[in-house]
Amino acid sequence: MPVNLSAPDPAALKAVAGIELGTAKAGIRKPGRRDVLIARIAPGATAAGVFTRNRFCAAPVQVCREHLATGAGVRAFVVNTGNANAGTGEQGLAAARETCEAVARLMGCTTHQVLPFSTGVILEQLPVDRLVAGLPQAISDLDTAHWAQAAESIMTTDTLPKAASRSVTVNGRAAVVTGIAKGAGMIRPNMATMLGFIATDALVPQELLEQWVREAADASFNRITIDGDTSTNDSLLLVATGAGALDADGAGGQAAAVLKAAIIEVACELAQAIVRDGEGATKFISVVVERATSLAEASAVAYAIAHSPLVKTAFFASDPNLGRILAAVGYAGIDDLDQTDIDLYLGDVHVATRGGRHPDYREEDGQRVMKEAEITIRVVLNRGEMATTVWTCDLSHDYVSINADYRS
Amino acid sequence: MPVNLSAPDPAALKAVAGIELGTAKAGIRKPGRRDVLIARIAPGATAAGVFTRNRFCAAPVQVCREHLATGAGVRAFVVNTGNANAGTGEQGLAAARETCEAVARLMGCTTHQVLPFSTGVILEQLPVDRLVAGLPQAISDLDTAHWAQAAESIMTTDTLPKAASRSVTVNGRAAVVTGIAKGAGMIRPNMATMLGFIATDALVPQELLEQWVREAADASFNRITIDGDTSTNDSLLLVATGAGALDADGAGGQAAAVLKAAIIEVACELAQAIVRDGEGATKFISVVVERATSLAEASAVAYAIAHSPLVKTAFFASDPNLGRILAAVGYAGIDDLDQTDIDLYLGDVHVATRGGRHPDYREEDGQRVMKEAEITIRVVLNRGEMATTVWTCDLSHDYVSINADYRS
Repeated sequence: MPVNLSAPDPAALKAVAGIELGTAKAGIRKPGRRDVLIARIAPGATAAGVFTRNRFCAAPVQVCREHLATGAGVRAFVVNTGNANAGTGEQGLAAARETCEAVARLMGCTTHQVLPFSTGVILEQLPVDRLVAGLPQAISDLDTAHWAQAAESIMTTDTLPKAASRSVTVNGRAAVVTGIAKGAGMIRPNMATMLGFIATDALVPQELLEQWVREAADASFNRITIDGDTSTNDSLLLVATGAGALDADGAGGQAAAVLKAAIIEVACELAQAIVRDGEGATKFISVVVERATSLAEASAVAYAIAHSPLVKTAFFASDPNLGRILAAVGYAGIDDLDQTDIDLYLGDVHVATRGGRHPDYREEDGQRVMKEAEITIRVVLNRGEMATTVWTCDLSHDYVSINADYRS
Repeated sequence: MPVNLSAPDPAALKAVAGIELGTAKAGIRKPGRRDVLIARIAPGATAAGVFTRNRFCAAPVQVCREHLATGAGVRAFVVNTGNANAGTGEQGLAAARETCEAVARLMGCTTHQVLPFSTGVILEQLPVDRLVAGLPQAISDLDTAHWAQAAESIMTTDTLPKAASRSVTVNGRAAVVTGIAKGAGMIRPNMATMLGFIATDALVPQELLEQWVREAADASFNRITIDGDTSTNDSLLLVATGAGALDADGAGGQAAAVLKAAIIEVACELAQAIVRDGEGATKFISVVVERATSLAEASAVAYAIAHSPLVKTAFFASDPNLGRILAAVGYAGIDDLDQTDIDLYLGDVHVATRGGRHPDYREEDGQRVMKEAEITIRVVLNRGEMATTVWTCDLSHDYVSINADYRS
């Protein structure tokens, strides 16, 4: 039951000149569902990606990194669901490379110009023959208008497709940013993958795009957590086709600023959609940590709260059991933290100050906030000037049910 | 439903000469249950403690540290359930000190010779008047034979009391080690506390005792995790009364070695009992990490696995979804980890090798091990010579139910 999330309106998803999308039913794991996506990218586009830091990263992640490093440019990417091609050793790497070769052959580009992505079960070999056999169907389906179908084709345990779109105009020159994503830590059966693809028709130099994809990930996908499990396949790809009217180098820096903001907006909307559709989620929780001495310190506190099963079950129960939040702050690893410096707010309610319960705090005020579907926890450390926000969801019975289910 | 754990046999809990225990019903949170424990310790005993590293530590933890630092010796400790006296600011510190003063007055020692411990709800003031009013009843109950009652009186969400006992003899001189503990991360309602008290009648010099309590904690309580939440009140106290026949300085080091081993055994039995009685636990899981380059590296990998909600729900479901374990190894923070070096065993089954599924691995073998109540996960990193073991339990529906319940 997603929290304040609905399926994207296909009409609101703007086509990006220079990118066509096509899907196919390849029967990777189960017959009858669209489980392969191909994107064809016009020549001259720039592309940059950020990938999981998991050292047990999947074969396609390794191949993506290799292909991007060649500087050959990107002419296509291919995504399959149903199998993550992770924990598959040398055979898995060969399967990812074979997939790229097949796409290159069919689309008339080089293997290095194709990026592979996979999501699904870990420790099982990718059925590369079925995947390759499905490619012609996906290619025949290619169309610039197919963003909604693309968003749907990459779903695994997501209950809704995730897509977002923005358009901007700078000095009369328009650009479009459209992206799709699928859920992270969403694992039935064992679909441990967050994937995000964002494209713009603006012209963006390679170096700038590489900087932006990192900034966009840090502002969005790197700020969400469902269960703290970093997947083997997490990937975000940012493509700029240059087929539109806007040049990011134009308008004396203004074009770049406006376009980057739109890209970050799309990334944040997609990232938050993943949390809203988190496994078993009934609450959308923003954890804000303010006045830390460093960003690392703020993040450590925010993630300690966002990962705490005790905090998350209390939110599921709408129980203002707020000592659990203070306990999480206390074990976040700040050695010289003084508990008497800390203020804690739940929504607009000042809960704790100077190491104890705020004198004006009343249980019914906490209770009122806890019943809302969207809740902000704000911790003020009163140590410095850095702040961050992390988005998460609660921990419910459905989370256990979904993840305890047999892979079937 | 604890995993292979039953209530301790009172007859098997050996009295420790020099320590008497008494309990009382003080009505700290609810009437009619034994919620206060006092221990009277004979003059001349040594005592040492290790306490939570949580920076939001409870008032009694702060007072314990202060009192132990005076070197005045320990003549008594007092424990209450129902209220953790954490997140209670200056008023909470005053309440903990007032408790010690009252005990000192009643027992004829100094305030600094009394150590306070609390477990229960966070962010609510300790009802110190009720606690103090209950002290005479506890004192009138003092008896060396009351270990089983003591174990029961400190329970919160524990379903069973936890106690263990050993006796050793070195060169004809006997000593007894007896301990009690209550559960960690066991939180209904919000009882976020692990407490452990271990006593011996041997004579142990202060310096040696301080070293042993740290070693015992590192070998036991510091190796368990239920949900990764470090409590505000975790405490382990080790007392050596010297009222028995054994001198730890005697027998050329042999007495010390034998006694220390018995203390660590008692600590491990208590720590494992806490996991066996973990909230909602249906499985007892040992996570063994071998051939790491350092103990820190081995621990990081072991805790990444032991804290992963995905791993824990898979164990609850008896689902050999073993890619989740490899994914946890991958995100444990070892930057130069090479996935092709790793071997994974589930019980006696070789599951993965060289970054992929072991060629001989069959799903039914994994399934067979997963159905057992006690399971060992063994990860061989093949990088160095260090190893560690962490004990944990699975994540079940009951965990969510217990922790989502309203505090009532």
